[in-house]
Amino acid sequence: MHCSPTPTSKHSTYFQLATIGSNGRTANRTVVFRGFQENSDKIQINTDCRSRKIEDLKHCPFAEMCWYFTESWEQFRINGTVDVIDGSNPDPMKLQQREKAWFASSPKSRLQYLGPNPGLPSISEHSSQENSLDPSSGPVGALLVVDPDQVDYLNLKSNERIAFTSIQDTNGEKLWNSEGVDP
Amino acid sequence: MHCSPTPTSKHSTYFQLATIGSNGRTANRTVVFRGFQENSDKIQINTDCRSRKIEDLKHCPFAEMCWYFTESWEQFRINGTVDVIDGSNPDPMKLQQREKAWFASSPKSRLQYLGPNPGLPSISEHSSQENSLDPSSGPVGALLVVDPDQVDYLNLKSNERIAFTSIQDTNGEKLWNSEGVDP
Repeated sequence: MHCSPTPTSKHSTYFQLATIGSNGRTANRTVVFRGFQENSDKIQINTDCRSRKIEDLKHCPFAEMCWYFTESWEQFRINGTVDVIDGSNPDPMKLQQREKAWFASSPKSRLQYLGPNPGLPSISEHSSQENSLDPSSGPVGALLVVDPDQVDYLNLKSNERIAFTSIQDTNGEKLWNSEGVDP
Repeated sequence: MHCSPTPTSKHSTYFQLATIGSNGRTANRTVVFRGFQENSDKIQINTDCRSRKIEDLKHCPFAEMCWYFTESWEQFRINGTVDVIDGSNPDPMKLQQREKAWFASSPKSRLQYLGPNPGLPSISEHSSQENSLDPSSGPVGALLVVDPDQVDYLNLKSNERIAFTSIQDTNGEKLWNSEGVDP
């Protein structure tokens, strides 16, 4: 890919992730960019295992990220499949990636995953201060890995739009084709 | 609804709209907030009639908007059905709403809808300067009207989350129920 998002400001560290639920409706929420996976174009997101998006992604692994950069007026629409890596994953390499992403996030972020079940009715007595976390304890959340296969890039300053489509070469390596399209 | 988004800065005039395409995949893009419809909680968006989202919405009218307010750290996830109002709409009231939304947008925005077909390969010779628009000429684009039935409000400063669900009273009027849920 010739263009890659380079998050520089606080407005650029998050994007919107759309999924499809088992009710056949789409869901859309803001998530935090946790970097690309080493030597790849795969995008990492940390999430609570009890979050609805896990259920959505297990039902339908296709998702679209919409990443808008306020300062540069650039939008990346990134469509692909999402791998959900939780503690039950049988692949040791993936479990290692999950652990790495867990320790790369702040202790405060990690603490969230020990709070009450997101989306369930609040029991007002509960205080998040009740939880504490041993900084050395392993991952509780899940790692989501977005493997992009289509990227729609739009630059509203230059009025340029490029459609990127991934293809596989004869060795099974991913390559990107690009084509200018009308904005 | 007790909370309503009040766009105040340039970061707050747009949000992300997720739809489901006929290929069964979700699509997600940034769109501009064009106000609430008079005396209602319905949200207006202007769009090009040739845009893929029209096709998506005709296939599946359910969509979710994700509206994140950078300054206040508030997120509104607004789920509902979307009415697509183009020139072929048989309802005179809806055609009037479309006309009103068209003239409320800037001549520059309107000119976009006369450009080349969005998403098709660029023919580099084409220049948007070739187009001109009589400021008095009627609507070319379509008006999208989002009728919300569920709103998930999240305040990351106060760590408060509220689930709003619409119900109908005995007169068929829309009412909102709210419940605090864990963030």
